[in-house]
Amino acid sequence: MPRITPGAVKGTRDYLPRDLVLRNRVFAQLRETFERYGYEPLETPTIERTDVLEGKYGEEGEKLLFRILRRGRDLDEGVAKLVAATDRGTGAATRLLSDEALRYDLTVPFARVVALYQNELQMPFRRYQIQPVWRADRPQKGRFREFYQCDVDCVGSTSVSIEAEMLAMANQVLERLGFEEFTIRINHRALLGALMASEGVPAGLTSATLVAIDKLDKIGPAGVRADLATAGLEDVVAQRVMAAISITGKPAEVVARLRAETQLGSDLAGDAALRDLEAVFGYLAALGVPETRYSFDVSTVRGLSYYTGLIFETVAPGAPVGSLCSGGRYDRLIGQFTGRDLPCTGISFGIDRIFTAMEILGLGETDTTTATQALVSTLGAANVGASFAVAQALRAAGIRTEVYADETRALKGQLSFAAKKGIPLLAIVGDDERQAQRVTLRDLRTGQQETLSMDNAV
Amino acid sequence: MPRITPGAVKGTRDYLPRDLVLRNRVFAQLRETFERYGYEPLETPTIERTDVLEGKYGEEGEKLLFRILRRGRDLDEGVAKLVAATDRGTGAATRLLSDEALRYDLTVPFARVVALYQNELQMPFRRYQIQPVWRADRPQKGRFREFYQCDVDCVGSTSVSIEAEMLAMANQVLERLGFEEFTIRINHRALLGALMASEGVPAGLTSATLVAIDKLDKIGPAGVRADLATAGLEDVVAQRVMAAISITGKPAEVVARLRAETQLGSDLAGDAALRDLEAVFGYLAALGVPETRYSFDVSTVRGLSYYTGLIFETVAPGAPVGSLCSGGRYDRLIGQFTGRDLPCTGISFGIDRIFTAMEILGLGETDTTTATQALVSTLGAANVGASFAVAQALRAAGIRTEVYADETRALKGQLSFAAKKGIPLLAIVGDDERQAQRVTLRDLRTGQQETLSMDNAV
Repeated sequence: MPRITPGAVKGTRDYLPRDLVLRNRVFAQLRETFERYGYEPLETPTIERTDVLEGKYGEEGEKLLFRILRRGRDLDEGVAKLVAATDRGTGAATRLLSDEALRYDLTVPFARVVALYQNELQMPFRRYQIQPVWRADRPQKGRFREFYQCDVDCVGSTSVSIEAEMLAMANQVLERLGFEEFTIRINHRALLGALMASEGVPAGLTSATLVAIDKLDKIGPAGVRADLATAGLEDVVAQRVMAAISITGKPAEVVARLRAETQLGSDLAGDAALRDLEAVFGYLAALGVPETRYSFDVSTVRGLSYYTGLIFETVAPGAPVGSLCSGGRYDRLIGQFTGRDLPCTGISFGIDRIFTAMEILGLGETDTTTATQALVSTLGAANVGASFAVAQALRAAGIRTEVYADETRALKGQLSFAAKKGIPLLAIVGDDERQAQRVTLRDLRTGQQETLSMDNAV
Repeated sequence: MPRITPGAVKGTRDYLPRDLVLRNRVFAQLRETFERYGYEPLETPTIERTDVLEGKYGEEGEKLLFRILRRGRDLDEGVAKLVAATDRGTGAATRLLSDEALRYDLTVPFARVVALYQNELQMPFRRYQIQPVWRADRPQKGRFREFYQCDVDCVGSTSVSIEAEMLAMANQVLERLGFEEFTIRINHRALLGALMASEGVPAGLTSATLVAIDKLDKIGPAGVRADLATAGLEDVVAQRVMAAISITGKPAEVVARLRAETQLGSDLAGDAALRDLEAVFGYLAALGVPETRYSFDVSTVRGLSYYTGLIFETVAPGAPVGSLCSGGRYDRLIGQFTGRDLPCTGISFGIDRIFTAMEILGLGETDTTTATQALVSTLGAANVGASFAVAQALRAAGIRTEVYADETRALKGQLSFAAKKGIPLLAIVGDDERQAQRVTLRDLRTGQQETLSMDNAV
């Protein structure tokens, strides 16, 4: 049998216990917060049929699918067809050699589940899903081929109360994780569309204009102006657009200034979008979200993706790693999958970004690399039974307790084991303690120790 | 874009919220119990290199690997080589078209991690791992292609205190899940080996004899006798073997009778194995495991796999679905991977079997299909803010609370939504309640309701 030397596959990660202490705590906090808002867990298989996945992620996305090789007779047949074919290119090969692939995101499986179980699921249906996805991207710092996505969606409601609830949930998640300074930037996709029209951007230049605005964080206002000029937008129109997206202030002030300084209010869609936003800001107050935590940011675009209503993204100024969580309303996407239009609002938490930001800001740091709280010594076979009894008493009291696994090793070695693992408490059960039915407790951080009766020790 | 009609891939499962209420609770109980015994979490990637996996599962196992198709230029090169080859059989095709595959079990990734991080991990190292594995078996009732394994192992200790600890942990896990009647059958691989030798089974017939004994549960003593005769075992030897494996009684009695009625005690390995067992039974008493929960069952074999010391499996008579958890000591397996012998003891919980057994025994049943505890009505846009305030107060008190997602729907519909989902409590906030800053609470199981001030309601 060959010896194993290699590590994890390129772009994937092993999570050792020291990594999982924080990671599992964060995941538990996410789940708990979602469930506290009535969102329920959903899990879908790792493998999906390629006809479910294909046509959803664009040509570039599809190249990144991890496809499963057919097996046995299916594989033989695929190979025979490929050998006989004149086109043996990548496209033909993947089609003939594979019909299943790994999950690429959580949205398509969610859409499949909604379509498949639509008669069983009570609508509106709120679900969260925290599972890994796979993309054969070129691995680089902070980008992996296997990574967790965390999506929270509500399907079946057109009420903007959902948007408000999601924003309150995002605020609470980040608060619980220890983030103090962050801003949820809120905007509205229909408002952007209406703004383009009302400020005189020709229909043919709307996309180019939005793409330019989307780059504001990266290239600054001057860069956006340059891009707009290159795209062929009239200078006076560009100036009006720049003026509108530069309006800042408290959310209600931005609404008021947009009504006063642009034509948005007299546009049907623009007015509706502004009223959506006003409703959401009102709900956020009822939900107790401080106004310092969010902004109405007219320059937020979130790409040219599938959003149709409110959009949002979250930045932490002290940890510029990109958006920590983002989302919005996408009323037409699920309909494309199911054949029945189903309104949907979703938020996605960037797990890797959140951990990176927490690291930069020093959040969630612990003085231990283990969840274990106590080590019970085992000093010779004669004392193992007494050590076990002590351990069971500690465990019954809810203390995570490890019994040292080699009773032939000297106390010094067992102490050093506890210290290296960062276990804070050592319970020593030697001959004296066993005979007296006592236990010596040593606090490994202070070095203090005390010999107590079993009852008192617990 | 094509409409999605298909379900999950053959042999895989979607887990809807109603499935995950119980499932996540069981998983949490498993994790909590393992951690209470000082076992720490480990997670490894879904995808492993095929050179890590190959040569570990036998020819039949290897056929069941889900292999990843190469991509881009790698795929083109593989296809070109395959087309040019004279051997285009399955073996050649898989080798040329793939070099990564999905995790087949949790043991090989564990061995890889131990080998890779051996200088970082504090030995003895206790870990648990609960992750899915993939096997392209023919799907059938109770057998899936994607299923969770749950392994708990301790590497780096030869002490039989580990075996005792694992048995105590298994007992506690099953107890927490609600199992009342179950038996952990304990035996020792070296004892079986010594027994074969001491009772006169020729070395060439040892495997055949063990294989026959392993079938005792299925074919009964007469069947085993017939198998032994077919294998060519002398009748008088077969009789001695059958007598030894039929010894029952309290664990200590079985030990005493084996010493008295067989030659085991005078065999070096046999005597050592009996002393291991005596030590474990003593430790189990110290760990508070009732003697009714386990047996010393000389007929337990656990296949011809890699075990070297104590072995065990667990049956629940009321739910005959096979072993709920099983394991033992395997001191040479990890060494085969790492090139350095590392003693190891492990236990595997059969997740699917445990859920099936729980279902048969009616354990873990809940009267709800949701984790959500309260629904707050939304009766018209004017009341949404007040509903939100009520919901936030309930959530702050730790109550998992959903706000109804469509404020235009009548109360009756909202009530029926709560009833269908099995949410036990409805908080109604209508015009009257909002104006009086009160809330009406209705217990949907009894139908009782009461209108209270906000503070009292919580």
